[in-house]
Amino acid sequence: MTSEIINPHAATAVTGVPGVDSDDNLLDPVFALHRGGKMAVTSTVPVRDAADLSLAYTPGVATVCAAIAEQPELAHDYTWTSQVVAVVTDGSAVLGLGDIGPAASMPVMEGKAILFKEFGGVDAVPLALECREVDEIVETVARLAPSFGGINLEDIAAPRCFEIERRLQERVDIPVFHDDQHGTAVVTLAALRNAARLSGRGLAELRVVISGAGAAGAAIAKILLGAGIGDVALCDRGGVLSVDRPGLTGVKAELAAATNKAGLSGSLADALAGADVFVGVSGGTVPEEAVATMAPGAFIFAMANPTPEIHPEVAGRYAAVVATGRSDFPNQINNVLAFPGIFAGALQVRAARITEGMKLAAAEALAAVVADELSADRVIPSPFDPRVAPAVAAAVAEAARAEGVARR
Amino acid sequence: MTSEIINPHAATAVTGVPGVDSDDNLLDPVFALHRGGKMAVTSTVPVRDAADLSLAYTPGVATVCAAIAEQPELAHDYTWTSQVVAVVTDGSAVLGLGDIGPAASMPVMEGKAILFKEFGGVDAVPLALECREVDEIVETVARLAPSFGGINLEDIAAPRCFEIERRLQERVDIPVFHDDQHGTAVVTLAALRNAARLSGRGLAELRVVISGAGAAGAAIAKILLGAGIGDVALCDRGGVLSVDRPGLTGVKAELAAATNKAGLSGSLADALAGADVFVGVSGGTVPEEAVATMAPGAFIFAMANPTPEIHPEVAGRYAAVVATGRSDFPNQINNVLAFPGIFAGALQVRAARITEGMKLAAAEALAAVVADELSADRVIPSPFDPRVAPAVAAAVAEAARAEGVARR
Repeated sequence: MTSEIINPHAATAVTGVPGVDSDDNLLDPVFALHRGGKMAVTSTVPVRDAADLSLAYTPGVATVCAAIAEQPELAHDYTWTSQVVAVVTDGSAVLGLGDIGPAASMPVMEGKAILFKEFGGVDAVPLALECREVDEIVETVARLAPSFGGINLEDIAAPRCFEIERRLQERVDIPVFHDDQHGTAVVTLAALRNAARLSGRGLAELRVVISGAGAAGAAIAKILLGAGIGDVALCDRGGVLSVDRPGLTGVKAELAAATNKAGLSGSLADALAGADVFVGVSGGTVPEEAVATMAPGAFIFAMANPTPEIHPEVAGRYAAVVATGRSDFPNQINNVLAFPGIFAGALQVRAARITEGMKLAAAEALAAVVADELSADRVIPSPFDPRVAPAVAAAVAEAARAEGVARR
Repeated sequence: MTSEIINPHAATAVTGVPGVDSDDNLLDPVFALHRGGKMAVTSTVPVRDAADLSLAYTPGVATVCAAIAEQPELAHDYTWTSQVVAVVTDGSAVLGLGDIGPAASMPVMEGKAILFKEFGGVDAVPLALECREVDEIVETVARLAPSFGGINLEDIAAPRCFEIERRLQERVDIPVFHDDQHGTAVVTLAALRNAARLSGRGLAELRVVISGAGAAGAAIAKILLGAGIGDVALCDRGGVLSVDRPGLTGVKAELAAATNKAGLSGSLADALAGADVFVGVSGGTVPEEAVATMAPGAFIFAMANPTPEIHPEVAGRYAAVVATGRSDFPNQINNVLAFPGIFAGALQVRAARITEGMKLAAAEALAAVVADELSADRVIPSPFDPRVAPAVAAAVAEAARAEGVARR
């Protein structure tokens, strides 16, 4: 029995917001597409008659419940929990919009959920939380853990996001992954690996400057160090993070201690002089004069959206490889290249968490998809390359087994 | 782009549980059906190429987020939230199994979720919570409210369920509905209305005895009183609830004060003498001698599953109308007759809550579906009657408007 009897989204006139006035909203393709939301739940079993109901619901379902009560790991096999990810936000750092709160963040969370499904075959449920304290978010999500196989944290502001991820992972035995950090980091590393391969250079030779010391910048620095990069310096609005810089506390002090072997100080422009790689995850603009001081054959990944820190045309005058976050230039650094495959692989082996080794393996597998198609305009696959998610998933699953966090 | 690249539910051998040993599990149709769970998430919009992605995700989605941030009610139109219900449990009172915890309750919650969709066209997400305190459950669900259009509480033990429902409804402006209470009550009232119509009697003439003073019994008593029943007495294991009975506290003391106008005391068997209606929501067995003392032309609704309190064959010797909770006897009192339509109607008009008037309207509409098919074996429609959910939804939506809780 399938009834589509009610459409709670019959159009209502809305007014006062540009682009969604009642006369406009059917004309604007973005609003038209979003009407009624972007996702649905479906049954994967029939419930057409009493016989169906007696299997899928009472009385049959009781035997499945009783079996799980006796042998809890059966929940993985006989419920959807081990194939479904919660996409969790508090709406505090949404895209370029900032702190717009949980309700207004839902279109992004739904978008993320459908990308999980369409690109990775992973079911996902968007959960926008009406709370802000680290304790509250950790506690709330930990209580939800029996319902999910993994937790994707999304668009939660730094530095809270770091503590939330760490503490939540200590509480639950399913993967917790803040995509704004690690998804971005994995794809960046993959692109950097291929840029280095194209140039015949080793990662150990490269000095990287990252503009932006928030969630993404911190995670990129960490994964690059894990991959054996030569040196990496992080810059925030106050300039280069260094152990000598006065006033650094908390996460930024830790980042300063872990990075910048060269002991650079000063501004982003100072750091760029002679640098091999620019990674922009900050917004803002880098003046062409500073770009011009980079080492010959540089790689410029200007990933701010919608306006890259360095326009690709400008970057192209100085760099051997240019990447952005945009789909209308070559080499789009897009998280959808990573998170669907990473979670698919982690869920496949019921990983208890996602280790640094699994992230490194994901980046290697993603880079390897390019293979002999490698060129300056193709250091990273297209988000629509169907080889990507299976390759990433297989590598992540294998790494999970190697690192002892797989449970099947 | 749709990839079904990974199946995290490839079979694994399980052992030690009767019916699911590796050799058996493909032979048992219940376990075979439950493998991999019973539900999935789907995208309702295309994400096949960069143009699709730019509408459904970045950069297009940002304009929708910004519009909602400015005009919050747009979330109803441009996200799925207003058409999705959270099915929330702590696993403390699951079917006849009792307190089996959140993980083991998931097959029931998934079943509920797919019934919401298949019978009412309402999307639903199962959430089994790892917490037990009233405060914790209320707080957790309240924090999730921005993500949902309604909250269906399920299989939470009495008396906590009463306080959780009340306090949660005070906190959130979307409907909170404990189906074990109100769904059962609505269907019971509908069946009783039709039994009375068949017998040419008014509700005010009827004296009802309810066996079971938990969630379902309490709610049935309340709705019957709201519908103008003559008298209703609730019985628990200690006998009839009355104001004179020593030791009654909390909810049971309130129930005693609100019911039993006749001032009955003693055992269930004592209360049944001369009673017009028996409603069983307790389990246990009522001896035939006690059934024989009921008034002529009685109605017997013995709804315990799988074993009715009074076997229909025995009940038929004394009663004019017999109903059970089972699908293999006539007149199945099945909650699926109520909750899909009730939520569909409430969501349709964006009701802030589900009032007593909306529940009474649902029961009337459900009873009316039977119309001129009314007979002793048909006081309630089949759960598979496609007229049910639309009729209930329409009545609930209309009542919500009449009671001033509709928001569109």
